[in-house]
Amino acid sequence: MARWEPGTKERLQAAALELFDTRGFDVTTTADIAGAVGLTERTFFRHFADKREVLFSGQEYFQAGFLRGIVEAPADLGPLDAITCALDAAGDFFPDERRPHSRLRQRVIDENPALQERELLKMAGLSTLLARALRERGVTEPAATLAAETGKTVFGVAFSLWIAEGEERSLGEIEREVLGRLSAMAGAPRP
Amino acid sequence: MARWEPGTKERLQAAALELFDTRGFDVTTTADIAGAVGLTERTFFRHFADKREVLFSGQEYFQAGFLRGIVEAPADLGPLDAITCALDAAGDFFPDERRPHSRLRQRVIDENPALQERELLKMAGLSTLLARALRERGVTEPAATLAAETGKTVFGVAFSLWIAEGEERSLGEIEREVLGRLSAMAGAPRP
Repeated sequence: MARWEPGTKERLQAAALELFDTRGFDVTTTADIAGAVGLTERTFFRHFADKREVLFSGQEYFQAGFLRGIVEAPADLGPLDAITCALDAAGDFFPDERRPHSRLRQRVIDENPALQERELLKMAGLSTLLARALRERGVTEPAATLAAETGKTVFGVAFSLWIAEGEERSLGEIEREVLGRLSAMAGAPRP
Repeated sequence: MARWEPGTKERLQAAALELFDTRGFDVTTTADIAGAVGLTERTFFRHFADKREVLFSGQEYFQAGFLRGIVEAPADLGPLDAITCALDAAGDFFPDERRPHSRLRQRVIDENPALQERELLKMAGLSTLLARALRERGVTEPAATLAAETGKTVFGVAFSLWIAEGEERSLGEIEREVLGRLSAMAGAPRP
């Protein structure tokens, strides 16, 4: 039995991101990744099903972050306010220490159409989940889907700003600003 | 040289949708589709690259519909009002006569995860295009992406309502209602 080594998964992940970024995702092999931290491919596969999973593992925690915000939101909040709670909770999932990692990960994804598709599916899954959580609070359709999709949009736009070079505000702060922009845009009287 | 037959593409499309719906997308072959309207597979491939294309051809007209709305929108309109023009133009692309076709097409897509992914990519492409059109009008980021994604959301929610059984309002009418709901939701003061 291999001894449990603390941080092995994180070391593999950091090495993989570095290699994906410098050499490219497609040409990097699982052997390269394992070798970069002095481990065997077998150890790599104990932590990740394949190299793509290095970028997408932990998705359940990401989703759980948003969901916790909705579940803990006061029952009398409207759909978009419940979504705001989800965005706050998601902000906690991305503390500032995580920013360099998120930035590097995004750069790798931006270079690769197949990874972009995978990320798009991940975000669509999040929206489906948020809409379901809202319906469980008694929100009817189409308000549930409308609020959930709007939450996804605000998160996506805020996240892009958060990982921009030179940005120093927290994700939560940026999310609030983006939500404010959307309110100003959507709440203004139509001509 | 084969003689050009008017409506061949449309007949193939109608037969394909019917077969996808009754037998399933995966088991239906291009030979089945061609045979159902008394044509050869060779004729099928003169109109569509593969059977999936039966569901996704004409995407350029779909996108052009939205874009026309933005290009023709008065220059002084804000980003979300320009998007509203795009939604109006898209509404024209889906007249009521098209509703049975759209309903059937959606039913086929809903049954098949791979087709759902393809549809998701199509809608993501639309959003990218709308954001670019807004930037060309001088809208800066993140407002352009925020308005474009919101337009995609409003269209998606309205479209689902439009193809629901028993719905009789036009797509444009439903889009306006959904936009109104979003304004009410997003414009309300946050607690």
